[in-house]
Amino acid sequence: MGKSYWIWYYGDYELHHLANLHFRRTERNYTRPACWPVSTPYVNVKFWKEFTCGEEGGYLVCRINGLGDMTVDGTIYASGERVTLGAGRHVAEAHVANYGGLPAIFVESDVCPSDESWGVNHFAGPLEPAGWDPQFDVPEKNPEVFPFAYETKYPVASERVGDGILFDFGTELFGYLDITGADGKDMGVFYGESREEALDTDYTVVIDKVSGETSYRLTQRAFRFIHLTPAPEGVAVTAEYEYLPLAMQGTFACDRPLFEKIREVSAYTFHLNCREGFLDGIKRDRWVWSGDAYQSARINRYSFFDKAIEQRTFLGLVGKEPINQHPNTILDYSFLWIIALSEHYMTYADGAFIRRIFPLAKSLLAFCESRINADGFVEGKDGDWTFIDWSEIEKVGPVAAEQMLLIAAYKAMAVLAEAQGLDGSDYLRKSEDLHRRVDQYYWKEELGAYIDSYSIDSNHVTRHANIFAILYDIADAHQTGLILQKVLKNDKITKITTPYFEGYELDALAKLGELSAVEDMLESYWGGMIALGATTVWEEYDPTLSGADHYAMYGGKYMKSLCHAWGAGPIYLYGRYYLGVYATSPGYETFRVEPCLGGLAEISGTVPVNGGSVEVKLDRTSLRVKTDKAGGTLVWNGIEYPLVPGEEMILKG
Amino acid sequence: MGKSYWIWYYGDYELHHLANLHFRRTERNYTRPACWPVSTPYVNVKFWKEFTCGEEGGYLVCRINGLGDMTVDGTIYASGERVTLGAGRHVAEAHVANYGGLPAIFVESDVCPSDESWGVNHFAGPLEPAGWDPQFDVPEKNPEVFPFAYETKYPVASERVGDGILFDFGTELFGYLDITGADGKDMGVFYGESREEALDTDYTVVIDKVSGETSYRLTQRAFRFIHLTPAPEGVAVTAEYEYLPLAMQGTFACDRPLFEKIREVSAYTFHLNCREGFLDGIKRDRWVWSGDAYQSARINRYSFFDKAIEQRTFLGLVGKEPINQHPNTILDYSFLWIIALSEHYMTYADGAFIRRIFPLAKSLLAFCESRINADGFVEGKDGDWTFIDWSEIEKVGPVAAEQMLLIAAYKAMAVLAEAQGLDGSDYLRKSEDLHRRVDQYYWKEELGAYIDSYSIDSNHVTRHANIFAILYDIADAHQTGLILQKVLKNDKITKITTPYFEGYELDALAKLGELSAVEDMLESYWGGMIALGATTVWEEYDPTLSGADHYAMYGGKYMKSLCHAWGAGPIYLYGRYYLGVYATSPGYETFRVEPCLGGLAEISGTVPVNGGSVEVKLDRTSLRVKTDKAGGTLVWNGIEYPLVPGEEMILKG
Repeated sequence: MGKSYWIWYYGDYELHHLANLHFRRTERNYTRPACWPVSTPYVNVKFWKEFTCGEEGGYLVCRINGLGDMTVDGTIYASGERVTLGAGRHVAEAHVANYGGLPAIFVESDVCPSDESWGVNHFAGPLEPAGWDPQFDVPEKNPEVFPFAYETKYPVASERVGDGILFDFGTELFGYLDITGADGKDMGVFYGESREEALDTDYTVVIDKVSGETSYRLTQRAFRFIHLTPAPEGVAVTAEYEYLPLAMQGTFACDRPLFEKIREVSAYTFHLNCREGFLDGIKRDRWVWSGDAYQSARINRYSFFDKAIEQRTFLGLVGKEPINQHPNTILDYSFLWIIALSEHYMTYADGAFIRRIFPLAKSLLAFCESRINADGFVEGKDGDWTFIDWSEIEKVGPVAAEQMLLIAAYKAMAVLAEAQGLDGSDYLRKSEDLHRRVDQYYWKEELGAYIDSYSIDSNHVTRHANIFAILYDIADAHQTGLILQKVLKNDKITKITTPYFEGYELDALAKLGELSAVEDMLESYWGGMIALGATTVWEEYDPTLSGADHYAMYGGKYMKSLCHAWGAGPIYLYGRYYLGVYATSPGYETFRVEPCLGGLAEISGTVPVNGGSVEVKLDRTSLRVKTDKAGGTLVWNGIEYPLVPGEEMILKG
Repeated sequence: MGKSYWIWYYGDYELHHLANLHFRRTERNYTRPACWPVSTPYVNVKFWKEFTCGEEGGYLVCRINGLGDMTVDGTIYASGERVTLGAGRHVAEAHVANYGGLPAIFVESDVCPSDESWGVNHFAGPLEPAGWDPQFDVPEKNPEVFPFAYETKYPVASERVGDGILFDFGTELFGYLDITGADGKDMGVFYGESREEALDTDYTVVIDKVSGETSYRLTQRAFRFIHLTPAPEGVAVTAEYEYLPLAMQGTFACDRPLFEKIREVSAYTFHLNCREGFLDGIKRDRWVWSGDAYQSARINRYSFFDKAIEQRTFLGLVGKEPINQHPNTILDYSFLWIIALSEHYMTYADGAFIRRIFPLAKSLLAFCESRINADGFVEGKDGDWTFIDWSEIEKVGPVAAEQMLLIAAYKAMAVLAEAQGLDGSDYLRKSEDLHRRVDQYYWKEELGAYIDSYSIDSNHVTRHANIFAILYDIADAHQTGLILQKVLKNDKITKITTPYFEGYELDALAKLGELSAVEDMLESYWGGMIALGATTVWEEYDPTLSGADHYAMYGGKYMKSLCHAWGAGPIYLYGRYYLGVYATSPGYETFRVEPCLGGLAEISGTVPVNGGSVEVKLDRTSLRVKTDKAGGTLVWNGIEYPLVPGEEMILKG
């Protein structure tokens, strides 16, 4: 007999936790809920199971999370009531309502334990296999409580500053702050990612006030520094660090300590931002943004290789039907969501997940197609946010970068359709049509570039569309060569200023073999932050600034996130381009290993490949590659070598 | 300057309260949430207002129900913070999340008070005028608390029965039970609509247990009898009666005291069931059912004339997009919902309401049209409940009664379209097409009847489709004559057994002038219950039963509702056919008064006509009609007399 699990309407667990996540942001004395449509679980659902007992009969006990009942063979039972079952066929049906929570049941039984064999609907549509999670396998583990892990952390330093005391935990963390030894008087709690923020109490972004007790446990926050003021002698703090227990499955080492340090800091930054979904930053909004999540998913595949967090993120971003808005209201984020899904499928080959989410992808695409103009190009309408990047892109009429993403999204849809044995050729045809028209309207041979917009005569060129054209194999070899010289390596074309888009640019440069540009950036940008004492990667870094000016953004003195997921991009670059491992068919059934030293003297590391891993060790004289998974091909100096599981392949440089 | 009100996304107030209503049912030790898709408010919404201050400037204070913030001209403020406004143009935008509640704001301001001039969306779609209710006009009145009225009620009798005490409140009521003088020991609380139910503790439907205190206030329930057991001497109960404060606007008197008593009992029954929406019955499920609500709306128009409860009911029944299920999962209830809307429009001419709800009506109709078969007839599919009535209708293939309702629903859609200045001719054409095909497939001239189903050869006839054909003007004069003789007056055709459908049958008979049949039914059916001591009208009455057998239904000893809204139908019949008042254009802009004595010697009464009323007094020698509203026409002996507001029209019989 199988195990019992809490079960729910598929996807509702994810929506429940992402909704709560998106409504938890606080700044100063106000709360800031997310500014896009958030979906929550169906408020009432039906669970259904038909089963047969042998001669010996059986029993069931149904526990209900919410209000509801369990009917067995027409008789109604309350939550927790034991039902004795005779021999023969039975039908069990539970109705559960939970307004503001997650309708779920846990059926303990020797014949029909609750698992994905139960059907669920919302009193409309067909019964579908239940949603579940292996962690919720006893009645006491309520699926409304997200299963984080905890660890007590202590400050590494403290000092009196005026009336207050400043504590430093040594590095940023997220969790509950525990205060002891207070005197019951009013005391302000100022959370700082930086020392300056914690002390600058008129501007500290996250603050609390306590009073009336001698000890407190405060709600979860992100902080490195805690400033209590006015604080009595003897007041002390500890933190209950809250985190997702993920195992690091990717590694990278090399001969340059700074590059290793960058990976360490990136990994810690990324881990702090891996929670219910992929967060952008751990302090300020703690929201899930589709563009950031797209990059986080790629980073995840070379680090934690955690499928579940990707799926929670994708489900939470798209929400429920009707789909009448882009993820985060951003047009480009719709396309990146679709492209991310196909990359997810290439990574994990989880066909069941794709079948469940594909109808939503179709609806989202249809919504995007409602934004296609008479020329056949997509453009933001009716309050759509055409983001692309914080940059001076000419956003007049349909923008080239959006077309690039739509071309790629159509190709992604074809992958997703084919994953289910459906015909994807319509999507491919649309992709090719659009590609042809994009070349016609946006490509300027004399500029060696795609222009931002054809609607005005400025012929303005930015890097963005051109980078996408390379990343998604839209530019042909000739165009790619021109783009590299006339755009990417052309200092007259406005530089990318955000690490978000820098992620795409470095990816494109690395793809074209320009690893020296990547290394320059690692050195100056990530190295620059680390030189300033950063223990996590910042949302943005401008070497021309100094002191606390580094912490300002969005018009606020400390509004910059100092622990931002997109800063963890080096993890992806190391794994994808230096160790050189990537899938060539869904789920890494086949994969390639194309290691590259770049400007380094030696590199080594591990890349997870969905049920196995690849170890690579390369220096200027030799290459060693080993994997425990079939389907691998080593590519070295243009020659392909099949990899045999368990056998180390050793080549001389 | 205008007043401030709590504002929300239009319709969400109604969804919030109907969701809670639908999850409150309890029986014995279990809860039974509604078994159809329930919609709840958007979990996060945006409020927006642009306004201009004069030289003197202004201020605002925004109170938020939920989590959120108010941004004015780019600066964020917390709930309750006072914002001082300078001269000139300003933009205020609030974001509010409330998971499990109603996102709403209350803006106190001398320049931009919160009212329907504020725009609201759910971060998708255009800004729409806010929803509001005149009752929520101060910050302290939270719109999540439904504004009922309260009155303390005392038992009229009590007696010791074994270990317990039985209290009788004299008539059924709904409210909080207050217990005093308890001894803190375990005590069972058994709520009875009948004395038998309260005493038969193994089968009492609604029960509570109390312990540990000497006084208790229990959650709201319906009851006439309270049985406490074991109960100490001195224990006492009172009830805090909870009701919707509605003013009775229709009256009816006649020379037969029983008929007046029937109206009194019907009105009390109906009032108890008028709450957040139109409930079916006050004890058992307390749910809103579309078919019951259709009849309740007609009763309401000759009694309380309360537009708001109708609108709450309609909004709550249809829910939010996507519409992928019928109200209560019942196919016929979709059509009745649409027909009810057009009758609502004819009554109140509230064009703004129709504009808001019409898109949902279109979606619901489209969903129903997805159930049309190759012959062009609608039929239940994929778990749709083809209800019509608890009767042995031949439900094979598409059923005639459903086609009748669809014909009427198309006509109703045309009315709703034209109410907004849209072209409704497509709906009329569909209605006529279907009507033609129905006559071809279902009408049997030799039987003088529409048959249940054309899919089998049985030619089975029930009253239902034929009644609808008369009510919705589908049968022509010739067919109507045949139906009256061969179906309605034919004892071989199975009699209607439910008061629900009896409501339609009596309506049809009265429409055909057969008031003697109506009077026979009033006498035997309603009179029969009253003779048994009923103080409210039952869900069903079968004169062949006796004693507590009257209270059994749905397989339970006391599962029959003894206070059921559909039993209040006489109110409608009196006003519509005896006093004879009905609208002939939207909002009673024109209306007719066609009084009829039937078998009575004298009748008199008042009918509300949307901003006015009509008084009718008729006996065998004279007729007096008076109204304060223009547009009325008196029809008497085939002659039309225009009614002049304020002038009594007196005619001799």
